[in-house]
Amino acid sequence: MRINAARLQRNLAGLSMCGRPAGGSFADGVSRVAYSDADLAGRKYALDLMRAAGLAPRINTAGNITAVRRGSTPSLKPILFGSHIDSVPGGGNFDGDLGSLSAIEVMHTLHDHNLTTRHPLQVVIWQNEEGGLVGSRIAAGESPDLARRYNGLRLADGIRKIGGDPAKLAQTRLAPGSIRCYLELHIEQGGNLDKAGIPIGVVEGIVSIDEYAVEIRGFANHAGTTPMPERRNALLAAAKLIETVQQVVTSEPGRQVGTVGHIEVYPNATNVVPGLVKHSIELRDLSAEKIARLGAAIRRQAQQIARQTNTEITITHLENDPPAMANPQIQAQIEQAAASVGLKTMRLPSGAGHDAQMMAKLGPMGMIFVPSVGGISHSPKEFTRWSDCANGANVLLHTILGMDRL
Amino acid sequence: MRINAARLQRNLAGLSMCGRPAGGSFADGVSRVAYSDADLAGRKYALDLMRAAGLAPRINTAGNITAVRRGSTPSLKPILFGSHIDSVPGGGNFDGDLGSLSAIEVMHTLHDHNLTTRHPLQVVIWQNEEGGLVGSRIAAGESPDLARRYNGLRLADGIRKIGGDPAKLAQTRLAPGSIRCYLELHIEQGGNLDKAGIPIGVVEGIVSIDEYAVEIRGFANHAGTTPMPERRNALLAAAKLIETVQQVVTSEPGRQVGTVGHIEVYPNATNVVPGLVKHSIELRDLSAEKIARLGAAIRRQAQQIARQTNTEITITHLENDPPAMANPQIQAQIEQAAASVGLKTMRLPSGAGHDAQMMAKLGPMGMIFVPSVGGISHSPKEFTRWSDCANGANVLLHTILGMDRL
Repeated sequence: MRINAARLQRNLAGLSMCGRPAGGSFADGVSRVAYSDADLAGRKYALDLMRAAGLAPRINTAGNITAVRRGSTPSLKPILFGSHIDSVPGGGNFDGDLGSLSAIEVMHTLHDHNLTTRHPLQVVIWQNEEGGLVGSRIAAGESPDLARRYNGLRLADGIRKIGGDPAKLAQTRLAPGSIRCYLELHIEQGGNLDKAGIPIGVVEGIVSIDEYAVEIRGFANHAGTTPMPERRNALLAAAKLIETVQQVVTSEPGRQVGTVGHIEVYPNATNVVPGLVKHSIELRDLSAEKIARLGAAIRRQAQQIARQTNTEITITHLENDPPAMANPQIQAQIEQAAASVGLKTMRLPSGAGHDAQMMAKLGPMGMIFVPSVGGISHSPKEFTRWSDCANGANVLLHTILGMDRL
Repeated sequence: MRINAARLQRNLAGLSMCGRPAGGSFADGVSRVAYSDADLAGRKYALDLMRAAGLAPRINTAGNITAVRRGSTPSLKPILFGSHIDSVPGGGNFDGDLGSLSAIEVMHTLHDHNLTTRHPLQVVIWQNEEGGLVGSRIAAGESPDLARRYNGLRLADGIRKIGGDPAKLAQTRLAPGSIRCYLELHIEQGGNLDKAGIPIGVVEGIVSIDEYAVEIRGFANHAGTTPMPERRNALLAAAKLIETVQQVVTSEPGRQVGTVGHIEVYPNATNVVPGLVKHSIELRDLSAEKIARLGAAIRRQAQQIARQTNTEITITHLENDPPAMANPQIQAQIEQAAASVGLKTMRLPSGAGHDAQMMAKLGPMGMIFVPSVGGISHSPKEFTRWSDCANGANVLLHTILGMDRL
């Protein structure tokens, strides 16, 4: 059995119209940020595809879209699978979209073949993945801050806009142990599969993320009249700290990454020595212990930099998403499914966060990756070959069927 | 003869009301940016002070405020002196204000003593010094970009708002050689006099400023999925370049300074490797040759950083304000004037730009500095002791009288 590759491609092209830049083409990517009108249009498009696949979708109180296909043994727990269709501003047409529409395509293929599995099958399209796994986080039992703004809208209003009910989020929660497993197909968003020429990635786990907020206090003063030795230059201290992050993170072997991506400088004027800098530090690895150790080393060196530059540096640990390990049995099933359709596989970690990490709290989790050309993602240039899209959907189909037989 | 110190202090306090933060006190500084309503109010206040000093002020086509006190020998060229009253946003009550109100106070003192000099005396309050010496630049013969916006207003509209006529700027130009000399009292804005405990600074010259615009092109990519060795991190390159500026500028003795004060990072998101950074570099010294040499060294090292980080770095030379040397005869006159009122002096360069550098193109120029407590300027914390303010005004008075006798 194979999914309908032409239909999958057609549906991805159709979804790409929702949030396409005015006058642009498929290659110009998409801006379908959560709770925008484009997001609403995309969700309507997905609802229609589900109905065409013989499903009766509903929007739950959190605003996630979900639909169940009955199994022959109603007492078995459902096999849950899906992804998201919201995007970053100026994103691509594969991140989330491929996993979501492939999940629907799997349902459609089973409908076409009139095949009934033992387990109930449940497809899900999580809302607002890009804003921090909002929909799957609620399903996993976390209580979100309803006043926090996403793309200009308070979360409560966003949930109402997409058809949810922020007062009844508890109804959407899934109990731990209530699912047979969770599966998600996604583009790699990195360059490992593309570089190795391997069509299917078997995710070992989703990395742990440590986020830090750095504040460097120096003293803003006139850039013409303040002698170099008397400066308390917060941006010079930040420059040294940015280099330190790079040096510490690359000082030992492994796949860990560290990034300073966001920086604010005050007063940020050509002719003023910067008096205050705020910046982020983000560390990721499958080993939470490793990034905790690297974080501690960065903090120690920051205090040396503060002394050197006569500034004050405070580093606050903001967030720690623990690693989410993929279930070994599911990893083996994905490899078997790939082999059954003649595809090579490679095991690798996910450096990006995914809704799957929330579902790993509730039951066995597995993820299938397909290559991103050039490793580019969160960009209109994001691209996955159509043959790789179809391969991923076929491996998802056969992994579901394999898990159903176990 | 001495100026009226109490009147000078009272007038500085009065001017501080124009642009004072709502509910604040003198210590909360001032926002009197050019062409704002606060600027307009400050200018009206200065016009009233001039009238009280027996002058008949007028606003010339460039919007500079000026008034002449007749001399006994009408064929002699005028001795011109003054400063500005516009401020940076969130600035202090001494930068510009002290020189402007001391110039008026000198006129008032001569009026009180009914003393007539040989040379005509001319007081001037330049408009929009903080925006780049706009008023004095026009007087020195440069043609400004009338469409450029300052504080939200096109220059043409700003000039009209303060009573000038942008279509007739040529009328405001001063011919080279048309003034006997130009004198300006100003706070040091650095910490040299304060630290040395010397009440009067004799400015040797105003430094040359080289401004560069740096653009660093890397590649924006996902911070979780892009391995460290494959990154083209524009902010890491910028960090190395910021450190290079510091290292090159401090690698040789002297008073040169170098600053990266303004930086923009794209997309500036926690979870994205920065793909593009733009930042400023500003170098200052009395020797134009020295900062050209330092700039060339920075450019060479930038190309090494570009290779190391796999980025492209382009550095554009934006502006070169040449140094403006103070006239040696005037420096000696300032020293004599200070000695005549019992004050010690120290020679020093001005690291900040001043309207005086424009006037140095037209005739002999001299500047008097008084101490800034802690070297703080462009800040509400800017402060010069009232006794130092009075000292500066007295030295200005006696320098004018000394130049008049020569």
